[in-house]
Amino acid sequence: MKFTISREVLLYNLNQVSRALSTKPQMPILTGIKIDVRSHIILITASNSEISIQAKINASQQVLIEEEGSYVLPGKYLLEIVRKTDSDNIVFVSFEENSVKILAGKSTFTLNMMEKELFPYISFDETDQKITLDALNLKQFIKKTSFATSDSESKMVLTGVSFTSTESKLEATATDSFRLAKKFITENIETPNISVIIPSKSLDELNKIIEEIEENVDIFFGKTKVLFKYMNISFLTRLIEGTFPNTNSLIPTEYLTSVTFNKNELVSAIERASLFNTGDASNVIKLTIKSENLVEINSSNSEIGRTSEEITPISISKFMTFQIAFSSKWFLDAVRAFDSNKLTIHFTGEIKPFIITGEYDINHLQLILPTRAI
Amino acid sequence: MKFTISREVLLYNLNQVSRALSTKPQMPILTGIKIDVRSHIILITASNSEISIQAKINASQQVLIEEEGSYVLPGKYLLEIVRKTDSDNIVFVSFEENSVKILAGKSTFTLNMMEKELFPYISFDETDQKITLDALNLKQFIKKTSFATSDSESKMVLTGVSFTSTESKLEATATDSFRLAKKFITENIETPNISVIIPSKSLDELNKIIEEIEENVDIFFGKTKVLFKYMNISFLTRLIEGTFPNTNSLIPTEYLTSVTFNKNELVSAIERASLFNTGDASNVIKLTIKSENLVEINSSNSEIGRTSEEITPISISKFMTFQIAFSSKWFLDAVRAFDSNKLTIHFTGEIKPFIITGEYDINHLQLILPTRAI
Repeated sequence: MKFTISREVLLYNLNQVSRALSTKPQMPILTGIKIDVRSHIILITASNSEISIQAKINASQQVLIEEEGSYVLPGKYLLEIVRKTDSDNIVFVSFEENSVKILAGKSTFTLNMMEKELFPYISFDETDQKITLDALNLKQFIKKTSFATSDSESKMVLTGVSFTSTESKLEATATDSFRLAKKFITENIETPNISVIIPSKSLDELNKIIEEIEENVDIFFGKTKVLFKYMNISFLTRLIEGTFPNTNSLIPTEYLTSVTFNKNELVSAIERASLFNTGDASNVIKLTIKSENLVEINSSNSEIGRTSEEITPISISKFMTFQIAFSSKWFLDAVRAFDSNKLTIHFTGEIKPFIITGEYDINHLQLILPTRAI
Repeated sequence: MKFTISREVLLYNLNQVSRALSTKPQMPILTGIKIDVRSHIILITASNSEISIQAKINASQQVLIEEEGSYVLPGKYLLEIVRKTDSDNIVFVSFEENSVKILAGKSTFTLNMMEKELFPYISFDETDQKITLDALNLKQFIKKTSFATSDSESKMVLTGVSFTSTESKLEATATDSFRLAKKFITENIETPNISVIIPSKSLDELNKIIEEIEENVDIFFGKTKVLFKYMNISFLTRLIEGTFPNTNSLIPTEYLTSVTFNKNELVSAIERASLFNTGDASNVIKLTIKSENLVEINSSNSEIGRTSEEITPISISKFMTFQIAFSSKWFLDAVRAFDSNKLTIHFTGEIKPFIITGEYDINHLQLILPTRAI
């Protein structure tokens, strides 16, 4: 096995693939990166129990393939070598029985191979169930839903984002049973009927790989896995088995009153109001509509003290004295998912869920359950 | 108690003083910041078992004092409030029996006081034993020595930097018994006879407070403490008791050969050569003078593999075949302490200590003990 590759090309692809390297794998072989050198292509693959990532690099001016071969190298050290070298090109060549020589300018690294027979076989084959989204849209789906999934593995289906589609609508929903995030698109999409739950951790890794550019991502749905193809990268994740709760009935459609805020003012006020909230359990703040021009946000902690913030809303659909208590963390998570700078909170009652919408965030809403008042 | 202060002035001083806040204090009161409001001055003080820091803020256009008083507030929350508010000015006023109202624009914080009687009395009084250094010089002393102190508390004196002075020479020495760093100045200084050991952690905190500007720092030496006065900040640290070893006899004055390198090339080569060194114990690299124009740096790890770096020295005083093994971590620490881009390593033997000097780093040397060859 022998090939020469541009450092820049190799580093980009190793960085992408290494997101699937596990630091604490059940199988030590999964700390390795597999490199398959074929006549005109190099495949670089890493995998852990959740996701597998493969980069395809074609022979080109920047990639010269002289001899085929296949081997697994320790991922962490391979990545460090390529990061730290300042040579434009790097040569990989088999050396003795069980090692690879990596030549980079005045540096020579002799890296022991791992046992390639132990590396699992991973199929990145395409399926018939295909949706094509552009990268910007896919990133929006992830950004606006993934954070609202549950951390607790006691209800496994809630640790993932539900993607469902019928005809020309694709909808993503996440909930941890205290809050809910929903985003859908209906235009410019052809979709088979699908209903899957994708682990939110996988989506967060995928989101790091996909850039904010106009580039298509092909998504292939299988029975237990889903494959994303973006540029030269194939990203495979397992699906979560089970039935996602039907959440559409939870979303109110009639409101008592709707209050519109400047997003940045609202975020700053909530952040300050929750300064004395320590830990997860006690992060409750109280929002009170005092007048047409004044909303007050309060919190209190018997040990530390009290906070009070005044904020002038942009508009109120219908003035009424109204008070509601909720988690500042859930609220901030939800508000930060919007791109609009004008947000509207639609209240349905002092102990009923409320929803947030954004002026320019179409087909997207966040729902939050109130907490018992403090 | 009532005063109004510019947010900017308060934030700067709270950031400085809060370096003495302990997150895990033996005494809960030391999580607090003491604020003394007097007729024309505000004192802000924090303290832990090692260091105490006090900022003096005079009444001015930016600081309006209306009523005197003294209280201790929880440091973490006070700092967070001032950080998060966007109001230009902040008003502090006593409220009810045991709290302080903090008014900042549309925000109101009511912060419970801590028991001020529990806050220890700290004397920031000046002593007769005084040295004045400029900030740039003092930062150099810290940067070039502090890292070489010992982490282990088994030899307590080695966890500090020894400062000694006689007549017009001030010298700082640090050693963990495997390496040694020394820096002194002889010019433009009048100094009493002193011999103290200052904890390296205290020096590192002091270094964060002092900026790289031409500003004097007055240093007052006491029997158990040393006080640094910089701008409006007083920084007090305890001294380490005990006798620092006499290290002058360890430093060789005759060399077998001296090799001069470009610092950046040397750092990159050592970093790459030590890529397979994992953990502290095994970070040994081997340096070999191969010819007048070639120095090789190697390391090896039976599990991962081997590295080899070639580097062309700028000059060699006397060519001889020579090989030495040492810790890459100690070497990198030492080399990074230099400001010069041309460094010379002076070798005295394959199993004898070597020293490093820099073209423009006058009165400064680093010494490293070799390790048994690998």
